[in-house]
Amino acid sequence: MNSITLSAGKIAEMVNGKLIGSAERQIHGVSGIKDAKADQLSFVSNKKYDKLLEASKAGVVLVCADLANASTENRSLIVCENVDYAFAKVVALFAEEPPVWPVGIHPSAVVSPEAKIGRQVSINANAVIEAGAEIGDGAVIGAGCYIGHEVKIGDGTLLYPNVTVMYRCKVGRKCIIHPGVVIGGDGFGFIPGPQGLVKVPQTGIVQIDDDVEIGANTTIDRARFGKTWIKSNVKIDNQVMVAHNVVIGESSILVAQCGIAGSAELGRGVVLAAKSGVNGHITLGDGVQVAGTSGVVKSLPAGAIALGTPAESQREFMARYTLPSRFEKLQAKFEALKKELAELKASR
Amino acid sequence: MNSITLSAGKIAEMVNGKLIGSAERQIHGVSGIKDAKADQLSFVSNKKYDKLLEASKAGVVLVCADLANASTENRSLIVCENVDYAFAKVVALFAEEPPVWPVGIHPSAVVSPEAKIGRQVSINANAVIEAGAEIGDGAVIGAGCYIGHEVKIGDGTLLYPNVTVMYRCKVGRKCIIHPGVVIGGDGFGFIPGPQGLVKVPQTGIVQIDDDVEIGANTTIDRARFGKTWIKSNVKIDNQVMVAHNVVIGESSILVAQCGIAGSAELGRGVVLAAKSGVNGHITLGDGVQVAGTSGVVKSLPAGAIALGTPAESQREFMARYTLPSRFEKLQAKFEALKKELAELKASR
Amino acid sequence: MNSITLSAGKIAEMVNGKLIGSAERQIHGVSGIKDAKADQLSFVSNKKYDKLLEASKAGVVLVCADLANASTENRSLIVCENVDYAFAKVVALFAEEPPVWPVGIHPSAVVSPEAKIGRQVSINANAVIEAGAEIGDGAVIGAGCYIGHEVKIGDGTLLYPNVTVMYRCKVGRKCIIHPGVVIGGDGFGFIPGPQGLVKVPQTGIVQIDDDVEIGANTTIDRARFGKTWIKSNVKIDNQVMVAHNVVIGESSILVAQCGIAGSAELGRGVVLAAKSGVNGHITLGDGVQVAGTSGVVKSLPAGAIALGTPAESQREFMARYTLPSRFEKLQAKFEALKKELAELKASR
Repeated sequence: MNSITLSAGKIAEMVNGKLIGSAERQIHGVSGIKDAKADQLSFVSNKKYDKLLEASKAGVVLVCADLANASTENRSLIVCENVDYAFAKVVALFAEEPPVWPVGIHPSAVVSPEAKIGRQVSINANAVIEAGAEIGDGAVIGAGCYIGHEVKIGDGTLLYPNVTVMYRCKVGRKCIIHPGVVIGGDGFGFIPGPQGLVKVPQTGIVQIDDDVEIGANTTIDRARFGKTWIKSNVKIDNQVMVAHNVVIGESSILVAQCGIAGSAELGRGVVLAAKSGVNGHITLGDGVQVAGTSGVVKSLPAGAIALGTPAESQREFMARYTLPSRFEKLQAKFEALKKELAELKASR
Repeated sequence: MNSITLSAGKIAEMVNGKLIGSAERQIHGVSGIKDAKADQLSFVSNKKYDKLLEASKAGVVLVCADLANASTENRSLIVCENVDYAFAKVVALFAEEPPVWPVGIHPSAVVSPEAKIGRQVSINANAVIEAGAEIGDGAVIGAGCYIGHEVKIGDGTLLYPNVTVMYRCKVGRKCIIHPGVVIGGDGFGFIPGPQGLVKVPQTGIVQIDDDVEIGANTTIDRARFGKTWIKSNVKIDNQVMVAHNVVIGESSILVAQCGIAGSAELGRGVVLAAKSGVNGHITLGDGVQVAGTSGVVKSLPAGAIALGTPAESQREFMARYTLPSRFEKLQAKFEALKKELAELKASR
Repeated sequence: MNSITLSAGKIAEMVNGKLIGSAERQIHGVSGIKDAKADQLSFVSNKKYDKLLEASKAGVVLVCADLANASTENRSLIVCENVDYAFAKVVALFAEEPPVWPVGIHPSAVVSPEAKIGRQVSINANAVIEAGAEIGDGAVIGAGCYIGHEVKIGDGTLLYPNVTVMYRCKVGRKCIIHPGVVIGGDGFGFIPGPQGLVKVPQTGIVQIDDDVEIGANTTIDRARFGKTWIKSNVKIDNQVMVAHNVVIGESSILVAQCGIAGSAELGRGVVLAAKSGVNGHITLGDGVQVAGTSGVVKSLPAGAIALGTPAESQREFMARYTLPSRFEKLQAKFEALKKELAELKASR
């Protein structure tokens, strides 16, 4: 971390929060609520963690309004409207800077003379850029990246090392793409032909719009025809699989190890939690939320919440989830009734 | 897409289909049934999508026999025996050509003088080929690929960029391997020894036969001894995990994010749908089909269909799946019976 | 395999086992029990495979004590306390040596003059090592690896080709890291801000302690602050996802395609079987075992065994798993009772 010092009062001002307790406490860094020391700042964004707050040694804690009455013995509190957002701001203040990617083309990079390189671009060691590729102003192409023929990389986009973008795919502006990502591998399509499986040509591209982030080792396949389309502001975690001709709506969130089968279409603001899956050729409306590990097999309207495999509504999921205990109760009641009938017969 | 124009009549001839409607309609490209315009061709391969066909603006549509009576107002239909196969042919006609991989060794590639390079081979920028490796005639080694010691790559095989093939593994002829694939990492084996976990040496190889396709970021581990074996014509999607000593039978299909544990053996024509898993040391007979996300824990005979986790037959799966509604019915019937008994007792 | 020959007697001595049958049988290699020939050694470590032993042609078989009375016709048996461990020793004897990684810096590698390279280090073709990185004595940096700014790689650690270690992360001594692994990509964190999703800076690192093995294409994200921490002796399989700020205790085993969400903490000796998942911000005690494909949603005490999604105890899981058959029985009993009541009413 950077060796800077900030007072509780100064931090409260920066995050636009309400200070409770001393404004003079000096902070040298940030930490989790369990590990934080007296000269560190931490955060608690949910009342259910009040015990952790109580036990913490953190000198300054960003808290939600529900915790405004917590003890200020040995600490100052800063009440924030959006604790996570405020904490992210403070973290950034103390953070060591990430490396600076040097502008220019490293001598070991292999850049086609037929590629078009923008201004203030950083092309790092052993990167390969093929003919017809276009790299936007201020973009960073990490070491060992492969940028295929006629690929377009937008202004200000950052490709970390060892990313592969295959021919003709398009990446928008200000995207962040982590190592090992593969954009534009062939979609998976085979048809039983007269002599075994025949490959279906995958002639389309991948189009990624602006402000998209893609996590390490995620794969996004090129379309059978037309495009696989990741719209702007979509955030994708590691090891996610996006199949051919899928469309992901703006600001959707795809958490680690989820997968989306061919030609599925997701609306705006959809959230697929970790390890979930979406069948091919179905549609998820705006704001649909899919629970972790769930497998969605049919289209869902906007705002739906889906759990389980095959995915169901919360009500259906709970009905299924509580079956064992409900079954035990019914069985007990059945045995009681059976006994009652036997007694009735005996009493005749 | 290529800027070519084809008439409905000409296309019907090429796909050996039956034309219904005008033969003169001119087509400049292909598209999905929802998005297609009047000068584009599309396809509908299942009667259940008849509404989409009705609403479509596509000028020419390849359809299955069930849809031969659909309206030909503003469109021509071409009835095909295998719509998918026919459409793939038309897509290929309009498709832009993929890049040509230049024959020769790029000056930035690092090729051991002890490697054996065939004729008409394309070794691209920054590829690394170790001593004893053999690259077959007409093979393409993409930029940044790593070909380990004594690896064999068959004639006509295409490795896209950034593929890793570790020492002594064998890849057959006419295979297609997408970026980020790792062939021949160590199998995962540890034994509790006297002083903690001891690594079990993984001394075998991976053998991949002819005409195999492997999707981006898939990993296939080397055997503990002997070989992990992918037989000919197997098609593997992205992010699939094949563990050590697994055997995959001819023409099997492994869909994205599925995984197969050590020493499992799959017969011919097995289909593992997306995200499914197969336990170690079990056998799946020819033609077994495993549903998406299912986890198979015991061996299955040829032709079996397995769903759920632990995977069951369709009958068992449906019995389990329909439990909540069957339970509700039983509960209602129980309450009715209880009431009946109470009435009976009251009436005595 | 190496062309060496060993007698049954010699092997029994080497693995400290009890020989039953001829000491003179000559062995030229090892194989699985089904495929082994008369001049090969194999193993059977569990009595349930006695049929395979009976049918095997292997000349020498390592067996557990339970199988000491098996037939020695055409074979010798060696009874071992730990069959797997003994077999691993024999496999190693016959195994061909893995490639030797040459000491020195390959001329095509790009090594910053500000990096600190230890003694007897092997830096292979096209590897990239950034400023401030430190490579320990005897370490191997495989072809195409990327070692970021200020990264530390411990003594004797082996990075196979195409591994990516991002800035400031630390890898301990004698680790083995397989191709395609990404260490130190950003953790996945976004906060709904005033104008859409705002990236939370991921300012921490990944710290990997000694003797850790990491399988192909696994990803381990850098911490939001502080560190994501893989403690010593942890063994990680392929395509595993470890999110930011996770802590994995000593000697834990993470099997292929499992995933651990942000800030979860695992104790010592935890086993996550294939494709399992662990929710964020929960704690698994020492020795917890999670079954394959299971999704753990709440903290578990030391020694717990968890199955299913949401994960339950074995007892709960079995209660749920056996519901269909128990339901059928209750239904049958219900129908019998209903009939009984009807008869009673009719007889009045």
